[in-house]
Amino acid sequence: MTVPGGVGGDMADADAETNRTWILAERPDGRPDADCFELEERPVPEPGPREVLVRTLYVSVDPYMRGRMRDAESYAEPWDVGEPMRAGVVGEVVASEHGDWSEGDVVNGNLLWAEYAVADGDDLVAVDPDLAPVSTALGVLGMPGRTAYFGLLDVGAPTPGDTVVVSGAAGAVGSVVGQIAGEAGCRVVGVAGAEEKVDWLTDDLGFDAAINYETDDVSAALSEACPEGVDLYYDNVGGPITDAVFGELNVRATVVVCGQIALYNATEVPTGPRKLGKLIETRARVEGVLVRDYADRYREANERLARWVDDGTVQYRETVTEGIESAPEAFLGLFEGVNIGKQLVRVADRRYDGA
Amino acid sequence: MTVPGGVGGDMADADAETNRTWILAERPDGRPDADCFELEERPVPEPGPREVLVRTLYVSVDPYMRGRMRDAESYAEPWDVGEPMRAGVVGEVVASEHGDWSEGDVVNGNLLWAEYAVADGDDLVAVDPDLAPVSTALGVLGMPGRTAYFGLLDVGAPTPGDTVVVSGAAGAVGSVVGQIAGEAGCRVVGVAGAEEKVDWLTDDLGFDAAINYETDDVSAALSEACPEGVDLYYDNVGGPITDAVFGELNVRATVVVCGQIALYNATEVPTGPRKLGKLIETRARVEGVLVRDYADRYREANERLARWVDDGTVQYRETVTEGIESAPEAFLGLFEGVNIGKQLVRVADRRYDGA
Repeated sequence: MTVPGGVGGDMADADAETNRTWILAERPDGRPDADCFELEERPVPEPGPREVLVRTLYVSVDPYMRGRMRDAESYAEPWDVGEPMRAGVVGEVVASEHGDWSEGDVVNGNLLWAEYAVADGDDLVAVDPDLAPVSTALGVLGMPGRTAYFGLLDVGAPTPGDTVVVSGAAGAVGSVVGQIAGEAGCRVVGVAGAEEKVDWLTDDLGFDAAINYETDDVSAALSEACPEGVDLYYDNVGGPITDAVFGELNVRATVVVCGQIALYNATEVPTGPRKLGKLIETRARVEGVLVRDYADRYREANERLARWVDDGTVQYRETVTEGIESAPEAFLGLFEGVNIGKQLVRVADRRYDGA
Repeated sequence: MTVPGGVGGDMADADAETNRTWILAERPDGRPDADCFELEERPVPEPGPREVLVRTLYVSVDPYMRGRMRDAESYAEPWDVGEPMRAGVVGEVVASEHGDWSEGDVVNGNLLWAEYAVADGDDLVAVDPDLAPVSTALGVLGMPGRTAYFGLLDVGAPTPGDTVVVSGAAGAVGSVVGQIAGEAGCRVVGVAGAEEKVDWLTDDLGFDAAINYETDDVSAALSEACPEGVDLYYDNVGGPITDAVFGELNVRATVVVCGQIALYNATEVPTGPRKLGKLIETRARVEGVLVRDYADRYREANERLARWVDDGTVQYRETVTEGIESAPEAFLGLFEGVNIGKQLVRVADRRYDGA
């Protein structure tokens, strides 16, 4: 990992027109490490026709990015070695050649792990700074919140009284899933990997029970927390936790497969018990979810999520590292469960705040 | 395996009022063998009020029975050691204390691996000997045919033009699945374990392609046989064949899990590659099927299947062993893929034929 310029942990500011940009230096073999990332000093680009120059405020790091570091086609194009890492970003417009955007507008787009980026103005979405802190456009009011919303309500389709189990329950998606399920009248059980997380789920978010997979026997704890079995399982992690939940599935249960973070760093094909026979026994349905399938309904999700955040139905939490140089650390922490709620990188403060 | 009376392979006949009955002698550990079964000579029972004495013509042996030999609750109650083995049976009524049934009626019921059994008359279903050979009530016009019908059409819900892959394609269920899928306008690819089977599928049953997993590289053969990927996979076998098909699933594909015969004799929990990530990539749906969920629609299935058999849309084949003493051999052959089409045990000829 090369950090040029010796700028350390300082926030970028108006005077230092740096544009430090993270490059995919090499593809990881297994767990990514510092050698995979290189911080380059690049020129601040200039917007062309219909383009906008965006100054980064927050970079989102998300588990799905591990897939893009791989040289394999999946639902997302792989990133190229030597090219900048991409990310959901909240930033402010500092120069615009697009009629929809003016200096000072706060926007959300798929940009870069960088201090600045140029974007096609048509690909940006407005962020209303009066609605909520702008960082929420990358979390509870952004992709993770919408994933929770559509994955739970559309794919999972819970019924009041259902027992819903969520893995990765203290993460950006899982924490929202559990709270929406509670609002939908379900009994909600979360699985997470730290005492502070399970306490947050039960004490603050209204989960009916939470299991610490680091200290509890997950199967036994599930059996106790779900005396009437599991009707809906929202899976963010995969692996042995998922095996344990499959053991508790009820007849006609639903499994929503949203993430498999426990497997993303595997160097060999991960193996585990074959579970399809359980689906004959229970006639359970297992189905994957990808939020972009719901692009034409993002407005619906955002309006409902914003209302729930506003009235306290859905609470959120962010774990934030400081400075563009901290982005790899923030990303790698996802695989250690460092984050509670949404993991973000704070790159700069708003320059036009209140302007 | 104890065979009393030295009656060898003779058909039971009217004079010899034997009632040889197969008992579960011990639970299998892994692949069942002869020690699991014991042939007892029992008295021919007498029907009580509302009961019927049925003389067995055919006994059905089916893969699901392996699950009932296990001491574990599943969708079916386990059989008790020392008690008779149960099976779908076609037989004729030889004595009736139930107003619906008379001597000579051909009936289908859940009876025993035995020459005679008494049944509650309310639990029997009439078999029309003029419609088709009575043995078909255990195959194409019975449980396997209905399983294929509901599993494919209700759970799988194919669309014309879909590519449908069927494993266990030359079995009692798979052969019907493939033919219905062809009738529904799909491209149909079967996977089976013998040259004679794949020839039957393509030459006689109209499958568009068939793969011999004993001699072909299944992944490569699938890729060639399914140039537009797999939209619907009807799984009767599980294990490595299923792994290979998962690799070819299209976006929004459907997997119907009907059987996992490749795993039923495992002595340890079978393991394999973890595949849930593929469901995120494809948003595929995986769902189990159990025919008894459709009990209130059996008439619909039987009427359509009978019409398709009558007009040649659905062809069938039976593999038949002779004599009640051959039932374990017939059952064990299922796990070696001995059968083409439905595996049956012929126990006796009709006594009232044409009466």
